[in-house]
Amino acid sequence: MVKDDRFSLALAAPRFREAHDISSKELRLAALNTQFDLGESPYSVVVVVAGMEGAGRGECVDRLLHWLDARNIKVHADPRGTDEERERPYFYRFWRRLPPTGEMTIFFDSWYSEPIRRRALGEISKEEFQAQLARIKAFEDLLSKERVIVVKFWLHLDREKQYKRLHADAHDPGRSWRVDQNDWRMWTRHGELSEAALQAIDVTEDAGHPWYVVAADDPHHRDSTVVKKLTKAIQERLEGPAPVKPEPPEELPVPPTDHVQANLDFSLRLKKKKYRRERDRLQGRVSRLIRAMGDAGKSLVLVFEGQDAAGKGGAIRRVTEALDARCYDVIPIAAPNEAERARPYLWRFWTRLPEHGRMTIFDRSWYGRVLVERIEGFCTEEAWNRAFDEIKEFESQMIDAGVILAKFWVAIDADEQLARFEDREETKYKQYKLTDEDWRNRDRWGAYEAAVHDMVIHTSTEAAPWTLVEGNCKRHARVKVLETVCERLEKVLGPSPDPDETTPPSSGG
Amino acid sequence: MVKDDRFSLALAAPRFREAHDISSKELRLAALNTQFDLGESPYSVVVVVAGMEGAGRGECVDRLLHWLDARNIKVHADPRGTDEERERPYFYRFWRRLPPTGEMTIFFDSWYSEPIRRRALGEISKEEFQAQLARIKAFEDLLSKERVIVVKFWLHLDREKQYKRLHADAHDPGRSWRVDQNDWRMWTRHGELSEAALQAIDVTEDAGHPWYVVAADDPHHRDSTVVKKLTKAIQERLEGPAPVKPEPPEELPVPPTDHVQANLDFSLRLKKKKYRRERDRLQGRVSRLIRAMGDAGKSLVLVFEGQDAAGKGGAIRRVTEALDARCYDVIPIAAPNEAERARPYLWRFWTRLPEHGRMTIFDRSWYGRVLVERIEGFCTEEAWNRAFDEIKEFESQMIDAGVILAKFWVAIDADEQLARFEDREETKYKQYKLTDEDWRNRDRWGAYEAAVHDMVIHTSTEAAPWTLVEGNCKRHARVKVLETVCERLEKVLGPSPDPDETTPPSSGG
Repeated sequence: MVKDDRFSLALAAPRFREAHDISSKELRLAALNTQFDLGESPYSVVVVVAGMEGAGRGECVDRLLHWLDARNIKVHADPRGTDEERERPYFYRFWRRLPPTGEMTIFFDSWYSEPIRRRALGEISKEEFQAQLARIKAFEDLLSKERVIVVKFWLHLDREKQYKRLHADAHDPGRSWRVDQNDWRMWTRHGELSEAALQAIDVTEDAGHPWYVVAADDPHHRDSTVVKKLTKAIQERLEGPAPVKPEPPEELPVPPTDHVQANLDFSLRLKKKKYRRERDRLQGRVSRLIRAMGDAGKSLVLVFEGQDAAGKGGAIRRVTEALDARCYDVIPIAAPNEAERARPYLWRFWTRLPEHGRMTIFDRSWYGRVLVERIEGFCTEEAWNRAFDEIKEFESQMIDAGVILAKFWVAIDADEQLARFEDREETKYKQYKLTDEDWRNRDRWGAYEAAVHDMVIHTSTEAAPWTLVEGNCKRHARVKVLETVCERLEKVLGPSPDPDETTPPSSGG
Repeated sequence: MVKDDRFSLALAAPRFREAHDISSKELRLAALNTQFDLGESPYSVVVVVAGMEGAGRGECVDRLLHWLDARNIKVHADPRGTDEERERPYFYRFWRRLPPTGEMTIFFDSWYSEPIRRRALGEISKEEFQAQLARIKAFEDLLSKERVIVVKFWLHLDREKQYKRLHADAHDPGRSWRVDQNDWRMWTRHGELSEAALQAIDVTEDAGHPWYVVAADDPHHRDSTVVKKLTKAIQERLEGPAPVKPEPPEELPVPPTDHVQANLDFSLRLKKKKYRRERDRLQGRVSRLIRAMGDAGKSLVLVFEGQDAAGKGGAIRRVTEALDARCYDVIPIAAPNEAERARPYLWRFWTRLPEHGRMTIFDRSWYGRVLVERIEGFCTEEAWNRAFDEIKEFESQMIDAGVILAKFWVAIDADEQLARFEDREETKYKQYKLTDEDWRNRDRWGAYEAAVHDMVIHTSTEAAPWTLVEGNCKRHARVKVLETVCERLEKVLGPSPDPDETTPPSSGG
């Protein structure tokens, strides 16, 4: 049996010091003004309202919306998730609901609900719980560093008060619908739930995303404390130091002599005849594997990065032309649009992850943060530095959810790029027009070599390795990409069925 | 049995005139250049690829994506719809997938798939089919007038060729997965399917959203015809007259003397004590009705329009404070953002319709088109004129899908507004700051009276009437809104259960 001691400690002090020291009217005024200031700021707010069954989370959120201006607040409550959500990594349902700058989302069902409940019921081990908490911590760290103000509340009732509250609600005709079997079941687990909650609070407590434990037995005290803490947390952040403005780096990075592209063999060539044979064979294999992937309830994400004119588009096309158009999306990544700029940088990638049986191909990707954004100074050094870990976490969540991931750096040498630029200047295909930016990037060849080196070194993992593709010979590059896609799929799904096996084998022997 | 005569006629002529008159390479070049031009234009493209089973729609779309630049094309194929989609009006699944300007979406499963299939199988009557086609026509009319280029293809096979193709596919190990029982079932209905398709084509054929019937027996001819027609249709629209730029109207509208607000009794008042009693009673009733609504699988949409300072916000709050915060969203409508400007004006409302058991409150709404956009000249006269019908169609689709809709015009007179503006200038709540726009709108009082008159006259329907709310007395307004919401809900759900009835009635008698 776990005691409530630590909760009691947290609750006792503020309870009697702060209660009723300002009126609801003043509170509401302060809260509204803060919400107005938020609307003009570069921040957004995410509120987690967690707590014991019967602690009145619903009432408390109702009150929040009543006191604040409900028009810029969304409330998320859906413990099951929709089928669109269930076919993506778990955090997809939260990422897609992140508010834009100036607005607020209250998570009634948050990333804490399932882990704490399941731990209290003994459905997951201590280790699994710890792993989930680590994931939550990483998520909130990212949010709070990306201008999202995260404020978390745990509404607490001790065992006896919880019983009284559930009992009273169950016998109040106007409220009895709020109490169900699950509430009573969780009451029997009061000790385990407290233990799990305390652990979650311990691990995920941070100045950037604080927890507030609030006594829930007195509704007025509960709600005014929540409004007061929330207002204060937002106001402090708004009045604190403004987000650092990114600036172009003073010095561009220099690659080590043995950087990852230094030893690529750009002389690799593939003759036309062999290329065609290989391509056809591999396209058939990819096509069969993608169908097997659908049957297995998995999905595929391909990432293509590379110098300008390295041949990403052509390599992508050799993959897609083998496939049913209904099963893939190709997403070109350029400068973020308005909605994207109003959220953490990974938002536009999270929200485009494929459902089961489908594939998303990113033509440029989240690696922009450690490539162009680093080199051009579109984000701060702090931001691209922590991005390596954030990206690994993102990819590891994909993989845990059954996404098969392949990442390609398509490389060419400087001479080849020059030749292709000159060639493009004469092409009839309008979209191949060269831009000034292409020439500018060319001047930063060494800086990109350094950035690519860091990227590959820091983000190649067992489950999501980088494949460097020698791109001077387009035929070689395309075959290598196709081959790698097959291998990544087969590693998870087993070997591709031989096309001949679909005709029944001859009988006998 | 229906003959293919009319299809044959449509197919015979172009078939032999145009086949193979330009090479695939030239075609592809033209298609790519057109796609590039599209990217720079204010248009988007919606392609419908419909046709007989076995006609190779999949192959044809694959080819399109191969020939074009797949990076700015999405393909939609999901005949079931996700659960998020099934809880909204049928066209929601298509609206949410409309491409932004410059891009293209290919609908493999389109708004034609279900109606044609079900009509061919005799699952819906001729009248139901006609009603669905009328709805489709209205949808495509709106799109094509809102800078969406709609191009539709019917890939046709006669009965004999369809048999041959299905038979051949079923016996080809690489393609047999494409043929299933449904394909054969539809083959037995070849005549009925042709008949339904011809009827659909007849009703929905329009210069703004043309159909092309394409013979599907020769894959090369089929695909090159589709690419050629598509390219030509886009190019013609791009080279045609540019969309008319909206301009401020030369003259502001003048209201008729007996306009709808002329006879409102602004002297209506409610005393504080009575107000509180009424409000509490009505809030309880709303709360019970909303729960009953969830049980009935329905949803609620409230629209609030009104002069500046008329008290929309306060009236909305009196509704929401009765409710569980998890069941509603309040959406403030201001100037559209980037993503919204890139789609037809109804897109941002369609994509926010509530799922079952939930409510969306629009604080200002799609009626902006016939109010502020009309008066400020943000859209052309043609656009706001047709909006009356488009809006009625939108609302009728909601209602058919089980949405309960209530629309409020909260009215105050000019003196009351002036008093409130002056009061607001002294308020401590920051978000109530007056803007210059508020004063400007005040100068257009008569023009708004005229626009409101037209709006109410043209868009009040049996199932979605306007409620005009005398707003000079806020208490009166709030009670009238609450009362109307209850009545709209009860009209559909039956009377609200009496709160006392939740305790079992005494036995006997």
